[in-house]
This record gives sequence, structure tokens and C-alpha cells, in this order.
Amino acid sequence: MKIITLTTDFGLRSGFAGIMQGVIYGLTPQARIVDITHFVSPQDIQEGAYTLWRAVPFFPKGTIHVYVVDPGVGTRRRPLAAQLGDHFFVGPDNGLLTPLIEDAEHNQQQIEFVHLDRPQFWLPKISRTFHGRDIFSPVAAHLANGILLHELGTQFSEPVRLKLSRPQKTDTGWIAHITSIDTFGNLTTDLPITLLPDSTHILFRLQDVEVNGIVDSYGHQHAGELIAVVDSEEFIELAIVNGNAVQKLGAKVGDIVDVIFSVK
Amino acid sequence: MKIITLTTDFGLRSGFAGIMQGVIYGLTPQARIVDITHFVSPQDIQEGAYTLWRAVPFFPKGTIHVYVVDPGVGTRRRPLAAQLGDHFFVGPDNGLLTPLIEDAEHNQQQIEFVHLDRPQFWLPKISRTFHGRDIFSPVAAHLANGILLHELGTQFSEPVRLKLSRPQKTDTGWIAHITSIDTFGNLTTDLPITLLPDSTHILFRLQDVEVNGIVDSYGHQHAGELIAVVDSEEFIELAIVNGNAVQKLGAKVGDIVDVIFSVK
Amino acid sequence: MKIITLTTDFGLRSGFAGIMQGVIYGLTPQARIVDITHFVSPQDIQEGAYTLWRAVPFFPKGTIHVYVVDPGVGTRRRPLAAQLGDHFFVGPDNGLLTPLIEDAEHNQQQIEFVHLDRPQFWLPKISRTFHGRDIFSPVAAHLANGILLHELGTQFSEPVRLKLSRPQKTDTGWIAHITSIDTFGNLTTDLPITLLPDSTHILFRLQDVEVNGIVDSYGHQHAGELIAVVDSEEFIELAIVNGNAVQKLGAKVGDIVDVIFSVK
Repeated sequence: MKIITLTTDFGLRSGFAGIMQGVIYGLTPQARIVDITHFVSPQDIQEGAYTLWRAVPFFPKGTIHVYVVDPGVGTRRRPLAAQLGDHFFVGPDNGLLTPLIEDAEHNQQQIEFVHLDRPQFWLPKISRTFHGRDIFSPVAAHLANGILLHELGTQFSEPVRLKLSRPQKTDTGWIAHITSIDTFGNLTTDLPITLLPDSTHILFRLQDVEVNGIVDSYGHQHAGELIAVVDSEEFIELAIVNGNAVQKLGAKVGDIVDVIFSVK
Repeated sequence: MKIITLTTDFGLRSGFAGIMQGVIYGLTPQARIVDITHFVSPQDIQEGAYTLWRAVPFFPKGTIHVYVVDPGVGTRRRPLAAQLGDHFFVGPDNGLLTPLIEDAEHNQQQIEFVHLDRPQFWLPKISRTFHGRDIFSPVAAHLANGILLHELGTQFSEPVRLKLSRPQKTDTGWIAHITSIDTFGNLTTDLPITLLPDSTHILFRLQDVEVNGIVDSYGHQHAGELIAVVDSEEFIELAIVNGNAVQKLGAKVGDIVDVIFSVK
Repeated sequence: MKIITLTTDFGLRSGFAGIMQGVIYGLTPQARIVDITHFVSPQDIQEGAYTLWRAVPFFPKGTIHVYVVDPGVGTRRRPLAAQLGDHFFVGPDNGLLTPLIEDAEHNQQQIEFVHLDRPQFWLPKISRTFHGRDIFSPVAAHLANGILLHELGTQFSEPVRLKLSRPQKTDTGWIAHITSIDTFGNLTTDLPITLLPDSTHILFRLQDVEVNGIVDSYGHQHAGELIAVVDSEEFIELAIVNGNAVQKLGAKVGDIVDVIFSVK
């Protein structure tokens, strides 16, 4: 039994996500479909990239991940299918896979890309605005049914890549950046805990608000206080205990967080 | 294995959609449930009608579609089950099926309606406000288990019908209407591309904003521009490239779009 | 085939709910996962308690319910698994199960709690902020695979309990309280219909708005009128016909509803 995941910016109002499930189950009734999210911010490829990258390691080997954040739908942007390590991916060639590609390269895993240029694996009729339904869903279903990656199209080697947010080293620490915001208004940064020498003598500054040190979890400070914690992917996260850091501070993706190592 | 879809205006906060799944799986564990949407605007039968009509063709034959947009719950409005072509439907008799009925009539497909008046196919206890849980979910499960439509209730032939939005012919083109709004704020109209003689010499006017011609897809104009495209169901759609036409123009369902054929 | 339900306050943007499904299906591919809701108000244990309590009776015996409304994640709050009657539960020991525990006690059903203190049933690596992924999902999967409750940890008998909202008797009737708000803005109270002697001679007062008597359903009054109905769990609910009582009245959870038996 194959798992097929969906990651899109469609929201859940239009029924588009359900329609993709209808197409998939029609072709591969035994598959299991999991919604990762349909609430990527519209057309935000970078946010989609981080969301999918965070989720993939928790799915079984062989999972097929369909992603549709696709502002270029109907233009010449390439539809692709890929294998990165033990996982498969189907979606537009627009950079959304960048962090997963970099991890696969770093870990010397299997990497393969094919340009989806064989209409026999698509729906009979292709619209100009909904390739998630017409191309990516049926291709994912065929993969689940055992069609091999290289049968689906022509191999290629240079996918589009995003320039990802990275922390910058300074004389006194790091300049980190907010990379995503969760339901609670917590702010994830691009700074992994592994880049910090000691968690107790570090100052974080966001706008004009400062936090000293990293606490173990949300429950270790009083409600309303800004804290720094290590998030579930081992990156530094800023949060307001039982509150919403985005609403209180007006922070947004891309904002700078100064990280200053203080003298002991 | 049967697929059962759900289309409601319940939202996802209350747990009502999950409760319906509990009822269904309790009676037919092998079924596969797909959420089409739970975000139909509250009590908006016409919006639900278009949403379900757009989705149905992409599900396999034999799919059972449960719909619960049901402002008349607990009154004398009839609960129904229906077969329209190769698909089955369960919900209130309130007109939501109108476009699907019209298509089935147009295509001379099988059409059958039954009034759900046999409580042995319902939950033992019927509330006055949640027939989605108490009547429609168990009936759908019994259909999935092989109970025949005519066993579920008394046949009837005149379901409630909506007056659907239709474009009106004018001397110079058409008066179209906005019929739905998607997650991106794109505006679907009731004008199918088949009614337009030539896509390059047509003017669309919404409020005081005009668009010339139809472009192939969103990526063919600059961000922020209003465009006309053919949507994934072959109807004319107005959209702002990488933007939100609803927020920018304040457009809403029912608004008029003037479509004017210009002289070549 | 086991059903595993999810009830969280994660929302659906972050992908956390999908990640939990990935973990579960990786360990128990044959399970069926149902989302009850991911839109419990952030950290609102009482709202989560009522939502789960309303849903559980409609799931088959043997269902495993995972709940993650967990402001204490990463502190000393106990992770637990429980059996209450014919259902199983996995989540933090924070009181969310209180109404279900009280029902099981009232009905003299089987009740068992274990402290999840055996890491061999968790993911290999435990974060400080996402026990839904790292502990509760894998434990639920192991339960679905046939591991017995008492194998998962050390039994204990005194779980944390919430003080639940209860109606108070007065000389002239009851003081009820709003306990939850649904998608339509309808207001559920803590007053069961069984505490009312006669539905036709009762006055309900919310703020300075009064309603006389209970109607059968929403469709029995005109649009815009405030009505009292019996909700699908047999509690008194206040609603505005085809409208939104929360938006119109600014009502919120905890607000008082005076219930006055009038002289016949």
C-alpha cells in the first residue's frame, strides 16, 4: 500500500483538494492519501519548500509527495517527477524541492528527475490552470501503481533551485531570519541549534525586543513572555508563551533576528 | 471499495465532519471517505451546488456523494438519495443537485430519486439539527454496503430545483455573472468559453475595470494585472495575477460581468 | 481495521497534522485515520474536552483517539494512554478527558490509565515541543497494532481533572453558561434539555436579549431571529436563524444565560 501526500496552496474551500483525491483514488484505489497542508500562502514557493521539507522525514520510505504551489501553471515551467533518497515527488519544477535536494546531495542519496512529457500518464484533457488535477495527481497514481520514474518522462539533471534563507555569521554571533510562522504565531528561524556554542549566554533580538537564553519548552516561562526554544526540527524558534508572537510583534517571514553571544 | 465524499458548510472547527466519518466507518469500515469541502458558505445552497457539480466528474463511477448544506434541517424538507448517471447522492432535497440533474437530463443518463422515509437505515436516535450525522451518513454507508437505492425509501420524481445563474445574450455580447470565488480570490463566471466566438477580440468589464482578450494562463501577464482566463471547467474566469481580485475589486458572487465583442 | 482519530489545536497550515498521519501510517499501515478537528482554540483544554466528548460516541468500539491540546508540552506534565469504556485515548494528562471520564464513571465502564514512560514505543528522537508527533502518534499506532494498554507504561489512577461548566439552580430556573460556539456562530450551553420541565413556558435571556420557548429547528422562525433549540447532543442552544449569534451579540464561551420558568 502506497501513501500519497498532498501539499498545496489551494485552501479547502474550493474542493480542489478533494478533486485531486478523486482523480488519485480513481486510478489507484488502494493508495492512502494524506493531506500535509493546503494552506501554503498563495504562490509562496519558499514557504511550501520548508513545509514539505519538515514533513517528508516522518513518512515511510516509498511515499509519493505531490506538491502544487504553482504560480507558473500554464506557462513553459516544466512539470516534474523526482526521486530523492527513498521518497518520490511530483509537481512543478519551480524550486520547491530545493531543501530536499540539498539534503539528498549532502547525504549522497539517489537523485533522479524526469520531465513529465508523456501525456499517456495524464488525464485525457488538460486544463491551463489546474495541473494538480490533470497531470500531477494521475502521475502520482501511476507511480503508486508501479510505473517506474523513468517511464513517466525524459530524465534531466538541473532542476530550478531557490535561494534559501541562511543565517549569516557576524563578529558577535549570527544574523538569523524568520522562515515560517505556525498556527500559534510562533516564529521559526533559519538558525539550527548546532550553530550555537552554549545556550545559556545568548541574546536574541527581534525588532527592539530582547530574550536571554533558550528555555526548554513553552511551559517554562510565564504567559505573555517572549521566549527562545529549540523547535521540533532543531532550529531556534521565538514564541510568546500562551500567546501569539506574530500578532503581538507584527513579525513576518524574512525579518531579521540578531543572535549575540554575550561574555560569560 | 466504495468512495464516499462529503460536501458541507460545517467548517472544520466543530468536529462535525469527523463525527460523520465516525458514523460512516462504523457501518462500512472498508469505504474510503474524501472531503470535497466543509467550507461552503453557511446555508449557501447555490455555492454548494457549483462546488459539488465541479467535483463529481473527477470521481470514479459508483461514488456516493453526501452533501449537507441544510438550512431547512428539522423542517418538512425531504431527505433524499439519488442516482444521477453513474454517481449516487445523499442529502436534503433543497436544489443543491440542480446542475447535476440538468447534466444527467441533457446526457440522457439514469435518474432516480428516493425520499428517505425508512428509519431502519438511520441512526437509532434522530436529532433535529444534525441530519448529516443521523440520516445522511448512515444512508450513504448502507449504499456503500450494497443496499439498493429503492430499498432506502419511496421513489419520487420532482426534486426541488434552484434557478441557476445563466449568462444573458445582448446585442453586443453577453451579460455574465460571478458564480464563485476560489482561495486565490479568482472570480468564476457562468459564461462557458463555448459561447465566445473568438477569444482575442473580446472586452470584459467588471465594475469600471476592463480587460481585453483572454490569456492562456496566470503566468502570461505581470503581477497585479486583471486578466481573463479559461478556468479548469472551461468557464471564463477573471483573476489578478499573483493577487486577489476579491480583495482588490470588492467583487462578490452575483456581480455582473459585461462581455462585449469588439469589431475586428 | 482500527480507527485512529486526531483532535488538536494545530490548525492545518503547518503540516503538523499531516506529519502525525505519516508517523501513524508508517507504523500501522492498515489503520484508518479520521481528523475530528485541528481547530480547537490554541491551548483551550476545555474546548477540546467538549469537542472530543461530543464526537466519541459516534465512533466504533475500539477506536483510538489521539488528542493534542498541550500547553504543557516539554514540562513535567504526564503523557498518558487510557481506556474509558470501549474507547482508547492517547495524549497529555491535562484534564481534556474529564467529561469522558465522568461519563465512564457514571456508566460504571472500564477505566484504566497508564503513564507513558516506556520510550521503546516512541520515535527514537523526542523533541521538546511536538510530542503529538514523537510520543502520542507512535503510541496510538502501537495500540492499533495490538500492544496492550498496560504494556505502554505504568498504571496510575488519579488523572488531572478540569472543573467543567455546570448549570446552577435558582429559585426561578437555571443559570446556564455558553460552553462552545460552532461554525455558524450558534451558542451551545451547559444546560441539558432533561433539566427543563416544559419547553413552552421558558424564557432565555442572554445579555439583554430574550427568547421565549424552544423551537423545533432553525427553519421554524424567520431569518435573523434569536431562537432556542435542542442541539444534537440534547443541550439547549441559542442561535440566530440563518445568522451568526456570536457576531451579532458578541457572545463568548463562559457567558451566562438566564433560564427562567414562567408562570403558566
